[in-house]
Amino acid sequence: MKHLMSPLDFTVEELDKLLDLANDIEKNPSKYAHACEGKKLATTFYEPSTRTRLSFEAAMLNLGGNILGFSNAASSSAAKGESVADTIRMISCYADICAMRHPKEGAPLVAALNSSIPVINAGDGGHQHPTQTLTDLLTIRSLKGRLDNLKIGLCGDLKFGRTVHSLINALIRYPNISFVLISPDELQIPSYIREDILGKNNISFEEVVRLEDAITDLDILYMTRVQRERFFNEEDYIRMKDFYILDKPKMNLAKEDMLVLHPLPRVNEISVEVDNDPRAVYFEQVQYGVYVRMALILTLLEVQVC
Amino acid sequence: MKHLMSPLDFTVEELDKLLDLANDIEKNPSKYAHACEGKKLATTFYEPSTRTRLSFEAAMLNLGGNILGFSNAASSSAAKGESVADTIRMISCYADICAMRHPKEGAPLVAALNSSIPVINAGDGGHQHPTQTLTDLLTIRSLKGRLDNLKIGLCGDLKFGRTVHSLINALIRYPNISFVLISPDELQIPSYIREDILGKNNISFEEVVRLEDAITDLDILYMTRVQRERFFNEEDYIRMKDFYILDKPKMNLAKEDMLVLHPLPRVNEISVEVDNDPRAVYFEQVQYGVYVRMALILTLLEVQVC
Amino acid sequence: MKHLMSPLDFTVEELDKLLDLANDIEKNPSKYAHACEGKKLATTFYEPSTRTRLSFEAAMLNLGGNILGFSNAASSSAAKGESVADTIRMISCYADICAMRHPKEGAPLVAALNSSIPVINAGDGGHQHPTQTLTDLLTIRSLKGRLDNLKIGLCGDLKFGRTVHSLINALIRYPNISFVLISPDELQIPSYIREDILGKNNISFEEVVRLEDAITDLDILYMTRVQRERFFNEEDYIRMKDFYILDKPKMNLAKEDMLVLHPLPRVNEISVEVDNDPRAVYFEQVQYGVYVRMALILTLLEVQVC
Repeated sequence: MKHLMSPLDFTVEELDKLLDLANDIEKNPSKYAHACEGKKLATTFYEPSTRTRLSFEAAMLNLGGNILGFSNAASSSAAKGESVADTIRMISCYADICAMRHPKEGAPLVAALNSSIPVINAGDGGHQHPTQTLTDLLTIRSLKGRLDNLKIGLCGDLKFGRTVHSLINALIRYPNISFVLISPDELQIPSYIREDILGKNNISFEEVVRLEDAITDLDILYMTRVQRERFFNEEDYIRMKDFYILDKPKMNLAKEDMLVLHPLPRVNEISVEVDNDPRAVYFEQVQYGVYVRMALILTLLEVQVC
Repeated sequence: MKHLMSPLDFTVEELDKLLDLANDIEKNPSKYAHACEGKKLATTFYEPSTRTRLSFEAAMLNLGGNILGFSNAASSSAAKGESVADTIRMISCYADICAMRHPKEGAPLVAALNSSIPVINAGDGGHQHPTQTLTDLLTIRSLKGRLDNLKIGLCGDLKFGRTVHSLINALIRYPNISFVLISPDELQIPSYIREDILGKNNISFEEVVRLEDAITDLDILYMTRVQRERFFNEEDYIRMKDFYILDKPKMNLAKEDMLVLHPLPRVNEISVEVDNDPRAVYFEQVQYGVYVRMALILTLLEVQVC
Repeated sequence: MKHLMSPLDFTVEELDKLLDLANDIEKNPSKYAHACEGKKLATTFYEPSTRTRLSFEAAMLNLGGNILGFSNAASSSAAKGESVADTIRMISCYADICAMRHPKEGAPLVAALNSSIPVINAGDGGHQHPTQTLTDLLTIRSLKGRLDNLKIGLCGDLKFGRTVHSLINALIRYPNISFVLISPDELQIPSYIREDILGKNNISFEEVVRLEDAITDLDILYMTRVQRERFFNEEDYIRMKDFYILDKPKMNLAKEDMLVLHPLPRVNEISVEVDNDPRAVYFEQVQYGVYVRMALILTLLEVQVC
């Protein structure tokens, strides 16, 4: 049985197949409308995440399946001291596949090891959020036509940004990828990524402080939120949060076919005046998130649609 | 694309058509049991309202559709600072139609302006609650056979009662409607309704303090809850809350075909001894609420059932 | 119309029929996959209980039906002061059957008395939790082949343990049942059960303090959680909670065909090293809980499957 703990659980070939399936779903949704009839997805969310939970639920409903679960730990058995291992054994009796969000790193892995149904890591603390990465990859591949030969700017909180770390790990498997890491000094990429991942794999990258200096020749600009909760004090947050706001003047410096992605939710790091720019594809990205989760559910449940 | 923000969004003719559809659903539910198959309703409730949420969900399930969503802001992205505009763009990727409840007036309108799916205002602060008004109109029309030529008593908290204000606005579009406004001085109808709506439209109305003085020749008695949270202090609440309790002796003064409606939940403003009186139709009203929401979903999704 | 308030609502004959149905569902799930199509289960949980709620929801979805409801009182109308009687009248307009969990004893009975749909007591305070008892009976009958001629050890918190009290009441209706009551002095079985139920019905039982002394000749060992919230002070809890931990050495003393049941969630009263022992059937029990709830829903809705 297969689970999804990290985006790297899939080889490049498996990933290609998954993204192909997602694109076929996009083109022929009705072909898949009954693929999971009689099957149930459990969403076990130990911390709230509406966006991710609803994306999974929409995906399963689009496949003709059903959904059940909980949206925060307070309404779960966790409050009674039950272990994740026991909870997933219970969930295995109730559902055919499970998407788990947990504040503790590794909790979905513990679940997978004790589960008799496929488990999808829907985000575990600052660790992994593989379906976000699959969403990013599908968005880029669908709209740029490729995952290789790209210059990708990653902007904002690169220190704590889980989605950025995952995306780097996923993209370095493709030929001729280079990164521009755009952040304040305080929120630079962790050294284990700079040295062990980018350095050791001879991936081309540069680090810059100002978005204006980097935007001109990017193929992809991946914006991220500067989360208030990551800062030790309010003062630092206020000083830094406005450094990296994408607005019309900055967009004017970019290439005509550059794409802007964002894992959402955004606060103010992308000005709403950018929303109508055809290069702003963060809402298309939401839609691709549904398609890729549909493909993932089909793949893990080993459902074949002809 | 059509949204529902206020009961007045529908013309009298459109409303007639909607209520006709609701009555056909009441008579032939199985005809509509698969009308929304493959479609999804999102219930985005930024404040809890079990009654309204479950009524929408029952309506969509009765049509063969599916439901997803959240039941309070704590388990939503709102906590992360996301705007309603961004949230509805996300929801547009997940569902085919959205019912939104929000504590802030105008939030559903902001959503509608940014949505690519129909949005239904399921209550925005003290402002509008249009599906309650549609429910009230369907109940009256179904059980009295008409929406014109009626003398309607509105009793309780007329100052803050959103449902009462909406009902007045909806009913003055029909010929020969008169109102009896029954409330303590402290909770009288706002002057903008008295002057700008009733006065300017030459609608006949009187204001009385005691329910006994008004009940005798009413066709409809619309009772409302005196909400504890509307009062500045507990003393005022306790002094006033029992003024307007409908009980058997008061019912004995009413006409044999008067109907008692209530938007529910009630606390003690209608004595339970009245529940078995055939004129008490507030639980039938709940059922009509499901039918009218089914008709509304079909109408906004432009689903034709033959 | 039939409701389920207590496990004793069913006669032994009716119970046999229900358990037969559950076993048929276990063997032929696809036969029942559309039995409740177009029907809705409302889960009205005034206090959270993920395990029980999800078991009901899985059961209804397995039958092809739909689910709606609320998972805690905070997101329900109860906060606005609505009575359970009014809430169930509302729910009767939204669903075909209702499972209600409530912190107050008797609340589901009040609901049943005011309902026009079948109501299932899904746990009311320290009073009853009949579907847990049905689950226990189905598990024992399915895996031991009988409900008579059994020696049953009940271990842990026998004073407050609602599931233990219900199970005793249900089992004494079968011939040649004997109990071994295993608990610290502070958590012994209440005297009304010792005297009025066991004594008056001439049921054979003994009371012991150490699990080791009792385990040797048991057919069933029913373990229960020692709930922290039952204790007046933390000291008592810490002193007693480890007295009754089932581990491998204790399992070595037991018969080869003894079964270990537990209503779950467990904290540490069964060591995880016991989980792989074939006699440990508490996770099978979870699965039987779904089957018995499916049988119950079919029975109360009077749905016949041929």
